[in-house]
Amino acid sequence: MQNSYQDDSYALHTDLYQINMAKAYWADGIHERRAVFEVYFRKLPFGNGYGVFAGVERMADYLQNFRFSDSDLAYLQDELGYDEEFISYLSTVRFRGTVRAMAEGEIVFANEPLIRIEAALAEAQLIETALLNIVNYQTLIATKASRVKQVIGQQIALEFGTRRAQEMDAAVWGARAAYIGGFDATSNVRAGKRFGIPVAGTHAHAFVQAYPDEYTAFRKYAEHHRDCVFLVDTYDTLQSGVPNAIRVAKEMGDRIRFLGIRLDSGDLAYLSKQARKMLDDAGFTEASIFASNDLDEYTILNLRAQGAKINAWGVGTKLITAYDQPALGAVYKLVAVEDDRGGMRDVIKISGNPEKISTPGMKQVYRIINNETGRSEGDYIALEGEDPHQEASLFMFHPVHTYLSKTVSNFEAISLHHTIMEAGALTRPLPTAEDARKHLARNLPLLWDEYLRSLHPEEYPVDLSPACWKNRMDIMESVKKQRKE
Amino acid sequence: MQNSYQDDSYALHTDLYQINMAKAYWADGIHERRAVFEVYFRKLPFGNGYGVFAGVERMADYLQNFRFSDSDLAYLQDELGYDEEFISYLSTVRFRGTVRAMAEGEIVFANEPLIRIEAALAEAQLIETALLNIVNYQTLIATKASRVKQVIGQQIALEFGTRRAQEMDAAVWGARAAYIGGFDATSNVRAGKRFGIPVAGTHAHAFVQAYPDEYTAFRKYAEHHRDCVFLVDTYDTLQSGVPNAIRVAKEMGDRIRFLGIRLDSGDLAYLSKQARKMLDDAGFTEASIFASNDLDEYTILNLRAQGAKINAWGVGTKLITAYDQPALGAVYKLVAVEDDRGGMRDVIKISGNPEKISTPGMKQVYRIINNETGRSEGDYIALEGEDPHQEASLFMFHPVHTYLSKTVSNFEAISLHHTIMEAGALTRPLPTAEDARKHLARNLPLLWDEYLRSLHPEEYPVDLSPACWKNRMDIMESVKKQRKE
Repeated sequence: MQNSYQDDSYALHTDLYQINMAKAYWADGIHERRAVFEVYFRKLPFGNGYGVFAGVERMADYLQNFRFSDSDLAYLQDELGYDEEFISYLSTVRFRGTVRAMAEGEIVFANEPLIRIEAALAEAQLIETALLNIVNYQTLIATKASRVKQVIGQQIALEFGTRRAQEMDAAVWGARAAYIGGFDATSNVRAGKRFGIPVAGTHAHAFVQAYPDEYTAFRKYAEHHRDCVFLVDTYDTLQSGVPNAIRVAKEMGDRIRFLGIRLDSGDLAYLSKQARKMLDDAGFTEASIFASNDLDEYTILNLRAQGAKINAWGVGTKLITAYDQPALGAVYKLVAVEDDRGGMRDVIKISGNPEKISTPGMKQVYRIINNETGRSEGDYIALEGEDPHQEASLFMFHPVHTYLSKTVSNFEAISLHHTIMEAGALTRPLPTAEDARKHLARNLPLLWDEYLRSLHPEEYPVDLSPACWKNRMDIMESVKKQRKE
Repeated sequence: MQNSYQDDSYALHTDLYQINMAKAYWADGIHERRAVFEVYFRKLPFGNGYGVFAGVERMADYLQNFRFSDSDLAYLQDELGYDEEFISYLSTVRFRGTVRAMAEGEIVFANEPLIRIEAALAEAQLIETALLNIVNYQTLIATKASRVKQVIGQQIALEFGTRRAQEMDAAVWGARAAYIGGFDATSNVRAGKRFGIPVAGTHAHAFVQAYPDEYTAFRKYAEHHRDCVFLVDTYDTLQSGVPNAIRVAKEMGDRIRFLGIRLDSGDLAYLSKQARKMLDDAGFTEASIFASNDLDEYTILNLRAQGAKINAWGVGTKLITAYDQPALGAVYKLVAVEDDRGGMRDVIKISGNPEKISTPGMKQVYRIINNETGRSEGDYIALEGEDPHQEASLFMFHPVHTYLSKTVSNFEAISLHHTIMEAGALTRPLPTAEDARKHLARNLPLLWDEYLRSLHPEEYPVDLSPACWKNRMDIMESVKKQRKE
């Protein structure tokens, strides 16, 4: 069997065990039972103090279009040997559930439900893998981008990673996530077209090599482009590149907009200072110095500390692959399921590793804003049905180190979950990448600076309501008891 | 502008600067000049002694279908402001070049051309970004998979990474690359369907939670599946999971094939030994123990050293993201270009970092097999037109540390480049993932064990022919001279 099946749906973009579980649920007649799954991660990546949620657009598209194609069904039956009756059932499966999720661009933290899926058990099971695949990556990159942007500050941040991205989807969805996280533009033109985000780029070394000499190359570029940034390190940055850029800029005068030069190798601190001086001496005080070459938040911080004269930062590999931690470990856990009598039963997953024990029950997440400071006091996870707005004061405590506690009054509790889909259909148009980017920019000031710094940030409080905490403890006890019997 | 353009081609999956360079070439009338680019990486990833090349199928598909769609052209004109005449030219662009490349599954090393593109300058420029995006990732994962497989040896290796992969393409193409690298199956069903590779998987924790207790869950699974592997760590591996698995296996007898159990948390060395004993005591000596949970070549090596009783290894995050080095830095460098007089001019890229200096000229790669030992003496890079078969003996020397040299006689020189496309069309059907996997397995024994070990492997010789080496030195000198003038 070779390539005999078309790749014509994403329904098989799942782990085989999901299909085997769906089969057992179906054969056992419990596939339509109501189930609630929540998505969360256990630890913030990069040692960052906050995360940035992304992936909703792609997830919603996947869920709306979920269906096994004819070629999917043929493959499952003919190659994997599933029986006709089950195949016939699979052909009817659509996602008809309810999805509540954080907004794209939301500031998020460990152990809080980012997405909540309520659906028929088998449906909810089949979508797990793709959903995590999408949200894990996009959230990881939006978080990395925001972290890098904190160091870049008001200067220009450009995403240049496509050639090093982990295949094509990572390049385009990563470009989008970087934009949400605060980057100003991407080099990826397809991402620009698809998501309406700004694109940037001028020329590479090959362009310089394609002409007999560097001066000719710059000159030719300038004759055919109004906006010019010359890449100056093909042969020798200070001896050849910068002087040739200046010569062409002078020759062309007003016929071009000489935006600046780009440094892509060597000692960026030293070279940028020398280049700045050469540009200034030639009268090009407005010309920018772009830098690229394996940059990340650490090199950028160091270059800025060394007084590098760089105005715009092209970040590639280290951003698009989240190089220092290339996976976010978000999980998808069953928190409640319909029982034999038609009621909902809250469920737990126990583990030898305490941090892996799940929190049972359908939950909501609130951000508690102190009305006096205008800053956030922390996030508050309550069971469905609880309403912190009703409380005059909230008792907030660390769910593990319970002695860490405080009482907050005069607060506003902002609900972070929004209903995105009902009965498998979008409830309203989704925010764009631009909306998500603005949402993040608007919300970052709600956090004290101590949570935003890149090195050793304070731990932001994510607390359980007393009822949610007690429910978890009770269920842990009952599982322990059951085990002993 | 929001999502108003369809994502209907990969032609825009490129960096904006490629389009800007193409524009200047076209406006300057040199866009049809012949150009030769080569793809290579400068350093093997993970400290491994060899790499495994992958990505050809996807690359060939991309090149064959390269064309700007109407919506691409509308975006470029209306949003990015390219003029109508250039847009009209772009609408005619197809890839009509010649591609020579290593076979998928080939063992490869740093600084040797993996792919050689001969095409019109503008065409060759436009395809760079996507080509690197594809080949960098797939080669990275095939290499990682082969490295992990060296440690797993003859036991079963399963790719389980989809949920942590960097978006969807990485999951499916990564699964394919892992299979080429020696993995036995993937959990990703879409990859199974698309590439005809084996898939594997049974059930997850949620399945156990969906039933009132673990015994019932295992029993229900067994009633509806012939092949059973029970995941035993939802509540307590040794107190609950393994005993329940044994109970169900005994009850079901011949009605199921009890393949074994899976451990997904806790101390895998200890738990696997205890579980082995429990299974053996119950008479299930043939039942396997599968393990997963953030495994990589280091944890597997350690578990094996500790005598863990594990027969099958599920590797996820660390493989599919190449966690310890999530990017391969393959580059695409111009090595020759047509000059004003219609001849070909070899070109170089100089850099302050000596390892970044390119090797000019169209090249071929040969693997030199010693006829007496049947093992490889190293790879030999020669200029186009040179033929090592004609030589009675080869002088092989390190291109930087030239005192490292040897003379080889009684050898066979195997050409590693194959013509894949001519005039933009496939010259023959491409090998499948299965073919590529077999090619690798067949070729690994050509390498001495010293190159295959995962810790501190010997450096495999990749040498330049004397003519190729001299050409590089001469061109470096002439650039240096030109710079001084």
